Amino acid sequence: MLSYQDNKTLTQTGAGTPMGEVLRRYWIPALMTEELPYPDCPQVRVKLLGEELIAFRDTSGRVGLVDEYCPHRRVSLFYGRNEECGIRCAYHGWKFDVEGNCVDLPSEPAESNFKNKIRIKSYPCEERGGIIWTYMGDPAYKPELPEQEWMMVPDSQRYISKKIEECNYFQGLEGGIDSSHVSILHSGSVGNLGVSKQSSSTTLLAKDTAPRFEVMETDYGLLIGARRDADEDNYYWRITQFIMPWYTMIPPFGGAPRGGHAWVPIDDENCWVWSWSWTPGRDLTEEEVEQMKSGVGIHAKLIPGTFRTVANKENDFLIDRDMQKRRESFAGIFGVGMEDHAVQVSAGPIADRSLERLGTSDTAIIKARRCLLDAVRSHEKGEILPALDAESHRVRAASVLLPKGLPFHEGAQDALKLTEKDFEAV
Amino acid sequence: MLSYQDNKTLTQTGAGTPMGEVLRRYWIPALMTEELPYPDCPQVRVKLLGEELIAFRDTSGRVGLVDEYCPHRRVSLFYGRNEECGIRCAYHGWKFDVEGNCVDLPSEPAESNFKNKIRIKSYPCEERGGIIWTYMGDPAYKPELPEQEWMMVPDSQRYISKKIEECNYFQGLEGGIDSSHVSILHSGSVGNLGVSKQSSSTTLLAKDTAPRFEVMETDYGLLIGARRDADEDNYYWRITQFIMPWYTMIPPFGGAPRGGHAWVPIDDENCWVWSWSWTPGRDLTEEEVEQMKSGVGIHAKLIPGTFRTVANKENDFLIDRDMQKRRESFAGIFGVGMEDHAVQVSAGPIADRSLERLGTSDTAIIKARRCLLDAVRSHEKGEILPALDAESHRVRAASVLLPKGLPFHEGAQDALKLTEKDFEAV
Amino acid sequence: MLSYQDNKTLTQTGAGTPMGEVLRRYWIPALMTEELPYPDCPQVRVKLLGEELIAFRDTSGRVGLVDEYCPHRRVSLFYGRNEECGIRCAYHGWKFDVEGNCVDLPSEPAESNFKNKIRIKSYPCEERGGIIWTYMGDPAYKPELPEQEWMMVPDSQRYISKKIEECNYFQGLEGGIDSSHVSILHSGSVGNLGVSKQSSSTTLLAKDTAPRFEVMETDYGLLIGARRDADEDNYYWRITQFIMPWYTMIPPFGGAPRGGHAWVPIDDENCWVWSWSWTPGRDLTEEEVEQMKSGVGIHAKLIPGTFRTVANKENDFLIDRDMQKRRESFAGIFGVGMEDHAVQVSAGPIADRSLERLGTSDTAIIKARRCLLDAVRSHEKGEILPALDAESHRVRAASVLLPKGLPFHEGAQDALKLTEKDFEAV
Repeated sequence: MLSYQDNKTLTQTGAGTPMGEVLRRYWIPALMTEELPYPDCPQVRVKLLGEELIAFRDTSGRVGLVDEYCPHRRVSLFYGRNEECGIRCAYHGWKFDVEGNCVDLPSEPAESNFKNKIRIKSYPCEERGGIIWTYMGDPAYKPELPEQEWMMVPDSQRYISKKIEECNYFQGLEGGIDSSHVSILHSGSVGNLGVSKQSSSTTLLAKDTAPRFEVMETDYGLLIGARRDADEDNYYWRITQFIMPWYTMIPPFGGAPRGGHAWVPIDDENCWVWSWSWTPGRDLTEEEVEQMKSGVGIHAKLIPGTFRTVANKENDFLIDRDMQKRRESFAGIFGVGMEDHAVQVSAGPIADRSLERLGTSDTAIIKARRCLLDAVRSHEKGEILPALDAESHRVRAASVLLPKGLPFHEGAQDALKLTEKDFEAV
Repeated sequence: MLSYQDNKTLTQTGAGTPMGEVLRRYWIPALMTEELPYPDCPQVRVKLLGEELIAFRDTSGRVGLVDEYCPHRRVSLFYGRNEECGIRCAYHGWKFDVEGNCVDLPSEPAESNFKNKIRIKSYPCEERGGIIWTYMGDPAYKPELPEQEWMMVPDSQRYISKKIEECNYFQGLEGGIDSSHVSILHSGSVGNLGVSKQSSSTTLLAKDTAPRFEVMETDYGLLIGARRDADEDNYYWRITQFIMPWYTMIPPFGGAPRGGHAWVPIDDENCWVWSWSWTPGRDLTEEEVEQMKSGVGIHAKLIPGTFRTVANKENDFLIDRDMQKRRESFAGIFGVGMEDHAVQVSAGPIADRSLERLGTSDTAIIKARRCLLDAVRSHEKGEILPALDAESHRVRAASVLLPKGLPFHEGAQDALKLTEKDFEAV
Repeated sequence: MLSYQDNKTLTQTGAGTPMGEVLRRYWIPALMTEELPYPDCPQVRVKLLGEELIAFRDTSGRVGLVDEYCPHRRVSLFYGRNEECGIRCAYHGWKFDVEGNCVDLPSEPAESNFKNKIRIKSYPCEERGGIIWTYMGDPAYKPELPEQEWMMVPDSQRYISKKIEECNYFQGLEGGIDSSHVSILHSGSVGNLGVSKQSSSTTLLAKDTAPRFEVMETDYGLLIGARRDADEDNYYWRITQFIMPWYTMIPPFGGAPRGGHAWVPIDDENCWVWSWSWTPGRDLTEEEVEQMKSGVGIHAKLIPGTFRTVANKENDFLIDRDMQKRRESFAGIFGVGMEDHAVQVSAGPIADRSLERLGTSDTAIIKARRCLLDAVRSHEKGEILPALDAESHRVRAASVLLPKGLPFHEGAQDALKLTEKDFEAV
């Protein structure tokens, strides 16, 4: 359990809140590159950490992310025109460039100096890995863009999706580092993440539903080992990476594509779930891409034209009690990612963690909360925050059999870290 | 009118509220037996007195009613599995029996004692009269199940329905003891409650729209006599029973099936309306059952798969101004029960009783409010509450012609009380 | 910008609020005459200034506007019967006439004096110009009905419509006196207001997007001159009338029908937009009426059976980015009135004016706010309020070319005021 105050600190992310200030020190995946496909394409509304914003790609191809509301009379720039290197308000024609400068103000006399006094809130954007990233914090502290493996591979080796989840970001994040639930919630569906339904991983997961957790603090977040009994001499280790402030990397299943997530606040009661799959050293196969599009794995089926999932809170996630009886899905929900989505959302928009009963299997979750709450204190003291170094993101999750007695971070050392050489190879 | 504070006391029923504590001292009709038709059938969400609960029927046929949220990480058991004598959370597999014991906890090591420390909130259930009843109060004070006539007759003599009404329970209850409105609101439709459209009851009701009320306090609630002029020598008495805390019995119309209701809080702005019809001493006819299913009487037409009425607040109860002009329904609403439903809901989720203008025709309503508010005070003082004795429920409503001058409770004595013999005969 | 407190004062209009009290000193356009087409027709719900009311036309043709809720037990009179010179509650039959007197009370004994103590809140109504007007203020101060030109012309010279706009009334009103935005927001669509797409007005509007404002206070509100450069010797003046408390008159486009609006609070987050077009001295042509019905101008397309616009907040006003690219509509919204509607609503239910950046082009808006806020102070001091004199409404908006140097109110004098003769001629 968490105190009322700590739960509030953990889950509130608006401008000026303690956690909101910490999250704003990191690059934020804001939207998919394909949402702004060409210069002067229609602008898009984006809500991040409670802030209502407009993203646009200008005539020269640069991306702007500005306040949704024109500073003049506060009408939405969604109805404005994206034209000639700026976005122009539809009401009185005030126009802003990607840096937030007012570049035209036709409603005032040309000789007035008024235009130069006007700015709109704007955040810098960069593109990498199929994503438009933004930085919403103090410009003086802007770090380098992170360098996670999936971001660096060629497009043909990567599949990305994004969806809205109807709860606080941290409920999603908790699922992403919780190896324990894989043995239960995903017991019917986990085979869909790998290459074959009857892989050794799924057998090992089913065999031991009470993994022991060993969690190590790192300079980027947490290294989370979940140990299950395999045979007389070996443990089966599933090793998850938690990278501050919201990245989780899923331990792989055989040669199947690797996967990971980011859990980014839209506001305090909704979050963006980013999902990526990638194959180091080879292209994704057509079959793999088809499977991702089908919604059977971590990528969800969306209502066309939206980032809302077809199965959602309003329709009880299309629960199918027959599918549940047959154990094809333990929760009766189609898709591995949607199983998580459903249970996470079912705890309410912001779970009341003061009522929880945590066990040893929640060790990683307890540590991750601590990691974020410590960051709040560090930030207040002006101390350095974890994972701001772009290179610290060059890590991998792993699934390995290790002899009993061998510490997991030693035994899995090579599997967990991308060397300079590896990194250049991708 | 009622003071702001008394209105609040009367209408707030959540755990810990004064009225909430009183209502929890009584058995509560929770759901229809047919909602949990067979062992290990799908669980059902139930909201009662503001508490979100899950009902399930286990492998042995016993019914459990537990907190909707798993104590571990607060996800909803709606997505769990009802299997092998317990309901199991879909997230980490924690499993609970009908008594709220944790019977399996697969995410923690078998040798840990953790499981034995975990319980889920659970309420005892019993089944009678086609209904699953629950008791949400202090176990030390659990009374016997009530013994109302309709509960005790064979299934073939009873028809039951349940619907959601979009307002506070007490607005519904007030309608159930308000004989006065029958002469107006139901003037076009009341014939549908009896055997013939032109019965003597309907004529008598139309003749005198200003009944005089005589209300007597009893050990179970109130005995409410509404007196109308019949002829030179006689009064027509419609005698309603109000049994604490929410039961109302409708004075009968000739040999037609008898009827009654319970008005049970879902939360403070919605209530369950339970309706029952029964025929002492004989089976319901097919024609009578068809009429009940048609929605013309006190049982409403529902949207299939829900307990939401087809005519509801969102569609202005499908008001038909032509039907209203023709006086087939005084309010232009189809169905006797829906006429009540519409006007009750139209006063808002919680009527502001501080603005009312009550007359002598509201005597029963004033007394019923007093009855509930007195129960709050009695409960706080640790005094005995009315109607906790199961046998006190063995009463009947009545409609009788009595000579002027004869007190109604004397003249109608036999019609109002079920003798031991009567009761055994049913 | 406006202080938080002034913004609150300006935008809150419920009973007892300072602005609410001022607005209640004026006649209010309540509903269209055609909404109550014949005696004893179905009653209609009307919400005005936050008050929920029922309008009905009685057997003699008189219009009543009364509290929606019966004083007895607060159920809605929407379900009541409009019959025999009064509206009768469906619950217990209490009946009220258009003046709010209780004329029948069948649920109480005839000999009781109860009926005479009962009244329902009622507001006087009058009909003029196709509209049912009401006065919701202190009866002692009821003024004469206003005498605006469009109200006085024969029906064949007038077209009226009404719609719901999903924001505070003042956001709408600001648009109505803001000549500046016409050059931008309506640059693609303004031709639809006139007789020809390429009129001299539209050319002049496009030529100068930064009009200089000269605003004069009058005994009815404001006379707002917006000056644009025309040629070497002349200015193009668009002169808008603002008549307290919510009327705006659009400067005309050539010989096209004249237009105006009233912006009336439904509650603080929604308003009625009344729109009227009229042709002094001649009937509207069929073509003109067709154009009005098409939604291309100031009159919007409505969802049949409602006053909700087809293009609305929920569907992003059916924005069409292609139409926007082609500059047929600067905002990509169909219809001149809907362009305004969309941007006004996009600022939120109640714009936060403390965040604005106003320029010289907002002079009229600043003055209009001051006009309303001054009225609050005048009213509190018991001083006379502007525009209560019916004859003060006999003014016109104008569009004129005037020699540079000539004050606009002098040069346009004849165009701005209806003489006694003019007024009688209409």
